[in-house]
Amino acid sequence: MKDKLFLMIPGPTPVPESVLQATAKHPIGHRSSEFSSILKEVYADLKWFFQTQNDVYIFTASGTGAMDAALSNILNPNDKVLSLVMGNFGERWAKIAKTRGAEVETIDVPWGNAINPDTLKERLAKDVNKEIKVVTLTHNETSTGVMNDIETLCKIIKEHGALSVVDGVTSVGAVPVKTDEWGIDILVSGSQKGFMIPPGLSFLSCSQRAFEAYKNCKYPSFYFDFAAHKKSLEQDTTPFTPNVNLIFGLHKAFEMLKSEGLDAIHARHAKLAKGIRAAIRALGLKLLVEDDAIASRAITSILPPDGVSVPQIRSTLTKDYDIVVANGQGQFKDKIFRIGHLGFVSERDAITAIGALEATLLKLGYNFDSGSGISALIKSLAETKVTA
Amino acid sequence: MKDKLFLMIPGPTPVPESVLQATAKHPIGHRSSEFSSILKEVYADLKWFFQTQNDVYIFTASGTGAMDAALSNILNPNDKVLSLVMGNFGERWAKIAKTRGAEVETIDVPWGNAINPDTLKERLAKDVNKEIKVVTLTHNETSTGVMNDIETLCKIIKEHGALSVVDGVTSVGAVPVKTDEWGIDILVSGSQKGFMIPPGLSFLSCSQRAFEAYKNCKYPSFYFDFAAHKKSLEQDTTPFTPNVNLIFGLHKAFEMLKSEGLDAIHARHAKLAKGIRAAIRALGLKLLVEDDAIASRAITSILPPDGVSVPQIRSTLTKDYDIVVANGQGQFKDKIFRIGHLGFVSERDAITAIGALEATLLKLGYNFDSGSGISALIKSLAETKVTA
Repeated sequence: MKDKLFLMIPGPTPVPESVLQATAKHPIGHRSSEFSSILKEVYADLKWFFQTQNDVYIFTASGTGAMDAALSNILNPNDKVLSLVMGNFGERWAKIAKTRGAEVETIDVPWGNAINPDTLKERLAKDVNKEIKVVTLTHNETSTGVMNDIETLCKIIKEHGALSVVDGVTSVGAVPVKTDEWGIDILVSGSQKGFMIPPGLSFLSCSQRAFEAYKNCKYPSFYFDFAAHKKSLEQDTTPFTPNVNLIFGLHKAFEMLKSEGLDAIHARHAKLAKGIRAAIRALGLKLLVEDDAIASRAITSILPPDGVSVPQIRSTLTKDYDIVVANGQGQFKDKIFRIGHLGFVSERDAITAIGALEATLLKLGYNFDSGSGISALIKSLAETKVTA
Repeated sequence: MKDKLFLMIPGPTPVPESVLQATAKHPIGHRSSEFSSILKEVYADLKWFFQTQNDVYIFTASGTGAMDAALSNILNPNDKVLSLVMGNFGERWAKIAKTRGAEVETIDVPWGNAINPDTLKERLAKDVNKEIKVVTLTHNETSTGVMNDIETLCKIIKEHGALSVVDGVTSVGAVPVKTDEWGIDILVSGSQKGFMIPPGLSFLSCSQRAFEAYKNCKYPSFYFDFAAHKKSLEQDTTPFTPNVNLIFGLHKAFEMLKSEGLDAIHARHAKLAKGIRAAIRALGLKLLVEDDAIASRAITSILPPDGVSVPQIRSTLTKDYDIVVANGQGQFKDKIFRIGHLGFVSERDAITAIGALEATLLKLGYNFDSGSGISALIKSLAETKVTA
């Protein structure tokens, strides 16, 4: 049905109507005092959302832009980088580091698994001369729906003396990311995720140690330059023309997010993920990530039942029920489908998704106990303590 | 008056209501066929607007991002770059080239002047070993309102065998920029200018010769990587999540621009610039750029009359008449004010601006023939042949 489409992909995520309206205002001058006063609040809100006292820079760019910014401001050719890879986005860190001329080593685990902190510990123990300058890692691997234990991993990295560079694109705003407490040097995220606004902005928090590394970077990026962004931030502005309209939207979204509260936002994501996982199990489908402890709270990866294909499920969900879910990426293309429940997603949306998934499976001839998915979901939702 | 503000700065420029509404639609998946079909049209429209058969890449970034993209994809450390500088944005090219480790030489002319093609010719004649790889230049210097003779300059550069890298941020869509005919290797522009949409996207056309230089670039930018963008463009997509909503807006804006026609758009800008210049002269004010031949058609820089300051003029225009004009930049701060007439600007807007400027000057005690500005403007507008 025209204009009915509802996104349950990991990004873009749904955007509240009031936020969309805020983005549709006539632009104002980006050097005006009116705009500066909005930016001042947004910079403060970003620190709250990133749980940090570090500066959080705003880039007019997508999440990959912030990832590029992270490494192109701290790496010199021949620097040693260790990349922890468990999916598509972990691989991206390694690719970016290579474009900076770094010597990149990876610790790879099969897609669908998390990084074992002991493996990292062992590898770093062998780095007796402290040659590894940077360790890149992914908090929530969007391609698989696995969540790493960033707290443990970053503490190990810090203890070793390397810099931790973390992809928080689909984790910031979905789960606690205690930037300062866990010692994360660089954390990046993107607007079309937990921030509940359209794509086009990305964010990067930079520790004092990371900024020191920047000072020794020979050819930092001009557009993403840390010092330029730091200086501008201190003056409630941006070094170059920002996406003024998305800043309006972000300002509005933060109003909503703050009124909900950080703990409540995290609890909502946990509750939805738990409920959806219960539903999938009740339907007799297989979760890619069986272990609840490493399951993402932003996205759930599901294997189709025998005799039903991922393209069939996705296309029926879209054509008949106006719901978009994501395909797998890379080696998981057409092997899994991924339901996003990140950002502006409510219990009603989870009920809608599971209901429509049941209808889809019925249509595609899968033999299951109809209603069991919804039943498991609503039971789980009712049982999970509401902390809002 | 709240919500009455009208921007007459060089960017952000005014955005049509229908375009704003298009940007406020719920985002759709950037890998959907629906989005690809929009992108396909937008890529074609960009070629039309850039007057080129070259690929035109779309970056989710502001204009400076595209400038950074231009040089970070073709330069290696120690490459020789010649930057033609006549203002703030010409200087920016030189700064970016330096961040890439290039050896940068500049030809500087006093702000408010254009580059003399003979000076360039003489300099290149001395480059007998063809060491100069890239010449950067600015079509329309936004900080002063001077337009370079890009056609002549780029032909000289091409003849020498160097690559021309042109800032067309405030010229594309305002004046003819015949990318292919004039042999421009790289041309960049930004969304919040002649494209009539908010800031957040930028564009870059890349010649075959520039792409060859890219292939020899040792550490090209990952986010702005030419090959990744070329490959995606050929598949009607983008390498990373684009600003989906601004693409909706651009699609809508191109509908309007195509219905007006390229010649008509250029004629409108020429007519408005001519009329505003006539009005300023009639009011007895001094134009920074006296020579009509090198005057920008997107922006007009004006010196305040004796006894009246730039801040007074700008603040009265904003407070009493809800019109924002720009201050000077750098050495011209508080020395000139700049009226933008770029993008979605009509004759009515020019009349409004000159009328309000007269009212402002009267209020600030300047002694002039009241009505003479409007009279000169409307006479000029009536006399200039309409080509729409």
